[in-house]
Amino acid sequence: MNENEVRASALELVERSMIAMVGSLGEDGTPHIKAMIKAEYEGLRTIWFSTNTSSEHVAQLEKDSRACVYFAEWAEEPWRGLTLGGRMEILRDRASRERLWENGCEKFYPKGVMDPDYTVLRFIPDWGKYWQFGTKIRFDLSQEE
Amino acid sequence: MNENEVRASALELVERSMIAMVGSLGEDGTPHIKAMIKAEYEGLRTIWFSTNTSSEHVAQLEKDSRACVYFAEWAEEPWRGLTLGGRMEILRDRASRERLWENGCEKFYPKGVMDPDYTVLRFIPDWGKYWQFGTKIRFDLSQEE
Repeated sequence: MNENEVRASALELVERSMIAMVGSLGEDGTPHIKAMIKAEYEGLRTIWFSTNTSSEHVAQLEKDSRACVYFAEWAEEPWRGLTLGGRMEILRDRASRERLWENGCEKFYPKGVMDPDYTVLRFIPDWGKYWQFGTKIRFDLSQEE
Repeated sequence: MNENEVRASALELVERSMIAMVGSLGEDGTPHIKAMIKAEYEGLRTIWFSTNTSSEHVAQLEKDSRACVYFAEWAEEPWRGLTLGGRMEILRDRASRERLWENGCEKFYPKGVMDPDYTVLRFIPDWGKYWQFGTKIRFDLSQEE
């Protein structure tokens, strides 16, 4: 696979994945992982999530925004995985909240779209690494529009 | 759920998971994630993996052994996740290699059990954190036998 084919496969993996694994750093710099629902994405350049403001995860990201997002497919062959490495932005403005708000969210955030426990996360990767048996390619994402 | 129930559910999640997500630290201290097949486990206290000596993952763990192992279930409810945090040991002795060696491994390691590209990883957690809707409990594993 050349880099263009790898980017196309990586994007296809993001598209079909409902769940992403999000890696962050604990207070002591140790790695942590949490499964999160992929709320939205824009190509390989931006991935959106939402979570509880009160979570340990948000406290970690406030202290150190370095993060990775990992997608994997092992239910069917070829097994493959994609790591995106970059930074997670914490957003609490109304437009970002409304962007991800859906019917049913009020079950988790009873005060509605401006509920203080509702936080939007926007992940911006600098690089990607795609793996599939026989292929392992790292590519740059820092110049993407 | 009390702590004993959480530990039992956590162990059941480990037992039924073929794949674990392994978190490690890049050279610059950033979080990385890789899906790995769980080769063996001993309760919640030890989880075994094998991988390629030549992989970036092994280079990372040689530099900084701090790691986490994450198991999650989202194909059926209740959705749940378990993070184990601790250290990953890199083992290359014959007994550890033979412990995990199976028929078919020679496809990946043609020189057999002592193939220099074959590395055994043993993860020893210090703590666990179990999540399930309505439950979030952290527990100590550093005193386990």
